[in-house]
Amino acid sequence: MAFKIGLLGLGTVGAGTAEILLNPAQRHPLLQELEIHRVGVRSLDKPRAVSLPADRLTTDLESIVTDPQIDIVVEVMGGLEPARSLMLKAIAQGKHVVTANKAAIARFGAEIFTAANQAGVYVLLEAAVAGGIPVIEPLKQSLCANRIHTLIGIINGTTNYILTRMQAEGSSFDDVLADAQQLGYAEADPTADVDGLDAADKIAILASLAFGKRINLEEVHCEGIRQITAADITYAERLGFVIKLLATAKRDGDSAFPDRLQVRVHPTLVPKTHPLTNVNGVYNAVLIEGDPVGQVMFYGPGAGSGPTASAVVADILNIAAILKVGRGSAVHADGRPLLDPLLACSHQDYAAIAPIDDLTTRFYARVLTQDFPGVIGRLGTTFGNHEVSLESVVQIGLREHQAEIVVITHCVKEGNFRKALEEIRSFDAVSNVPSVLRVLSGGFGDLA
Amino acid sequence: MAFKIGLLGLGTVGAGTAEILLNPAQRHPLLQELEIHRVGVRSLDKPRAVSLPADRLTTDLESIVTDPQIDIVVEVMGGLEPARSLMLKAIAQGKHVVTANKAAIARFGAEIFTAANQAGVYVLLEAAVAGGIPVIEPLKQSLCANRIHTLIGIINGTTNYILTRMQAEGSSFDDVLADAQQLGYAEADPTADVDGLDAADKIAILASLAFGKRINLEEVHCEGIRQITAADITYAERLGFVIKLLATAKRDGDSAFPDRLQVRVHPTLVPKTHPLTNVNGVYNAVLIEGDPVGQVMFYGPGAGSGPTASAVVADILNIAAILKVGRGSAVHADGRPLLDPLLACSHQDYAAIAPIDDLTTRFYARVLTQDFPGVIGRLGTTFGNHEVSLESVVQIGLREHQAEIVVITHCVKEGNFRKALEEIRSFDAVSNVPSVLRVLSGGFGDLA
Repeated sequence: MAFKIGLLGLGTVGAGTAEILLNPAQRHPLLQELEIHRVGVRSLDKPRAVSLPADRLTTDLESIVTDPQIDIVVEVMGGLEPARSLMLKAIAQGKHVVTANKAAIARFGAEIFTAANQAGVYVLLEAAVAGGIPVIEPLKQSLCANRIHTLIGIINGTTNYILTRMQAEGSSFDDVLADAQQLGYAEADPTADVDGLDAADKIAILASLAFGKRINLEEVHCEGIRQITAADITYAERLGFVIKLLATAKRDGDSAFPDRLQVRVHPTLVPKTHPLTNVNGVYNAVLIEGDPVGQVMFYGPGAGSGPTASAVVADILNIAAILKVGRGSAVHADGRPLLDPLLACSHQDYAAIAPIDDLTTRFYARVLTQDFPGVIGRLGTTFGNHEVSLESVVQIGLREHQAEIVVITHCVKEGNFRKALEEIRSFDAVSNVPSVLRVLSGGFGDLA
Repeated sequence: MAFKIGLLGLGTVGAGTAEILLNPAQRHPLLQELEIHRVGVRSLDKPRAVSLPADRLTTDLESIVTDPQIDIVVEVMGGLEPARSLMLKAIAQGKHVVTANKAAIARFGAEIFTAANQAGVYVLLEAAVAGGIPVIEPLKQSLCANRIHTLIGIINGTTNYILTRMQAEGSSFDDVLADAQQLGYAEADPTADVDGLDAADKIAILASLAFGKRINLEEVHCEGIRQITAADITYAERLGFVIKLLATAKRDGDSAFPDRLQVRVHPTLVPKTHPLTNVNGVYNAVLIEGDPVGQVMFYGPGAGSGPTASAVVADILNIAAILKVGRGSAVHADGRPLLDPLLACSHQDYAAIAPIDDLTTRFYARVLTQDFPGVIGRLGTTFGNHEVSLESVVQIGLREHQAEIVVITHCVKEGNFRKALEEIRSFDAVSNVPSVLRVLSGGFGDLA
């Protein structure tokens, strides 16, 4: 018995997926029971990296999701539409779906998973986050006994590549971005990556799995890396930090709102002793902290044809394994097959997300002033008036005849810090506050 | 409907497991459907960290594995017997088994999994390797589309703790071991850990899963860390390396034996740029390289009550999820339920393991001599005569009026290197070759 796959898309990830399916040797024997039945493409004439019989290809994508012979629809075309509609149609036809589409899942996950639960089919999405690194399935299965507290990821390869090169070369953001675009590590329109939107999609998905709640993407606080300067990277380094674009989801810990989550993406100063510091280039990593597991970290290639296809085909095999052993003999009262409660996505409530002003964190701020001795007292007083206690105030350099002061705070309420900063910006002696960044507190577990 | 658990053992891991099962809040809802039905202990009078009704406890372990009400037997008592017999009896009674027992699985895996397949039950063992770090399930499921090439692990916390402290403090093995024993990081009889036997058990299990073959434990080459001196750690550090006890399983790559594996445990010089270098203290890490995923690494706490229990309960939940949705409606011709081909362990052939003499690797050797200029030429000639090409020969220190020479080779055949070394040991001018260690070649993927 062969399981028939309908592939939507034959770009980088689609070709990588087909490549594995066509070469099962030395891989799991179950691969031999999979068959690429139809492949939906935009153009039949385009030369392909992978050789498939011409009659398998079609430009009629609808005909794939309605093909009664197909068991599993694999959506690797990307984009919001027609990906969303095609997935919903496949589900309505009782087909299982595997997707790598973080943008569609982050926006339409509620609609897609509701439909999947009604139809009694699985929608698996390991490839949507962190490419080839197993993260989704470990969260669903291997770590399912835990009460997850925190999930921190470097989950956008483009920004990590840019920051790594800025760090290594002392170059500016614009120069490295231009080079990354030439080398194919950044898109012609880099917005989704450099403004943190792609990471926001992914952390929304991870948060939803880790905490069993739906996440409203609009509530995810999101800052990108355009404003990071070579100066900030240098100063951070001198103070013992590396700047990374971190995506964070954690329990807020505010006793007044026990179920509230923080879900946010922003550049962050990471202590050099922290293992996320050494995640460089296009590599991704996800650190998960739970009770009682403690902290575990997953590390590897966050993108690319091969790694992403590895995740896509793993999902296909997981569904094939379920189909093969006849899971689904247990049914709901209305006859729908019961879905595996670890693999299916059954939560329906939206998470309460803490507003960013309620965040408690450490800050780094760089202040340009013409009057260092005078300003330092006023900075201290102003921060103090707003309950912002300082860890250090250092004149770190001179820039255009101005003293450059770097302030690092203790853990303080973001709203208080912002109010203090607003006042400070209005000082005559302060000409600019070019950078404000958050600082990661807490390291990876100690020796013991 | 509740799933009934029979727990064999209420020590560190057993108590951690009970703790999770008794506290399901904010964890996966499926936990609420699990019930600790009976707990087998050695003594009923011992004070327990976890409070269970007294009538759940029994010293009659057999009564648990034969109790018709119990669905899942959780073996966390450790040791070879009666653990093996109890697992086999539970399987014969049609019960699923979850175990943390690497020693029993590494030795009796063939017998246990054959019995499980005949009975149509699962034997899951996430907790047997690397404590709370998800490794087994990712290998079985998330990475199942890959052709695995290499698996390298730091999978024994005691030796990693000792090496980390020797590195940090410049202390001797004996001093750190004694201290580790006092602090509870090493057993009174530390043999299984410091001689690499525990790591050998674990790498045999990982190799078996990664390559789909049974591993004969006696063929696993195994060296421990007793012979590592503070001098070696210092010299390694000067040359840009850290010494770690690595457990390795990889395809041999010898075209004459295409299916042959290397499975070995030995202290290894790891380049400081390699991510395994930063895995310190009792932490564990497993690096897996596959096609097409590339390299992924899993990192976290390798032991301890909470982390290990996290893995045990994940396995319990995975079985409960299978039972809940009625997987198993498909059956073999003889009526046995078909097992999920990703989760069950169905391979039956033993792997061909390459003899250690056939290994190709780099070496580090420390040679003590009274005649540096004279010896250096003879070393070069002797190694050359045995086809061992050298990367560097450095007089690195003076010790007891003797020149201390450190040799690093290119990748050479272990057998050739050993023969050359035998000759060198016989030189009059060479008083001793106190250390011979292997050197890890190849780093983690580059920027691109």
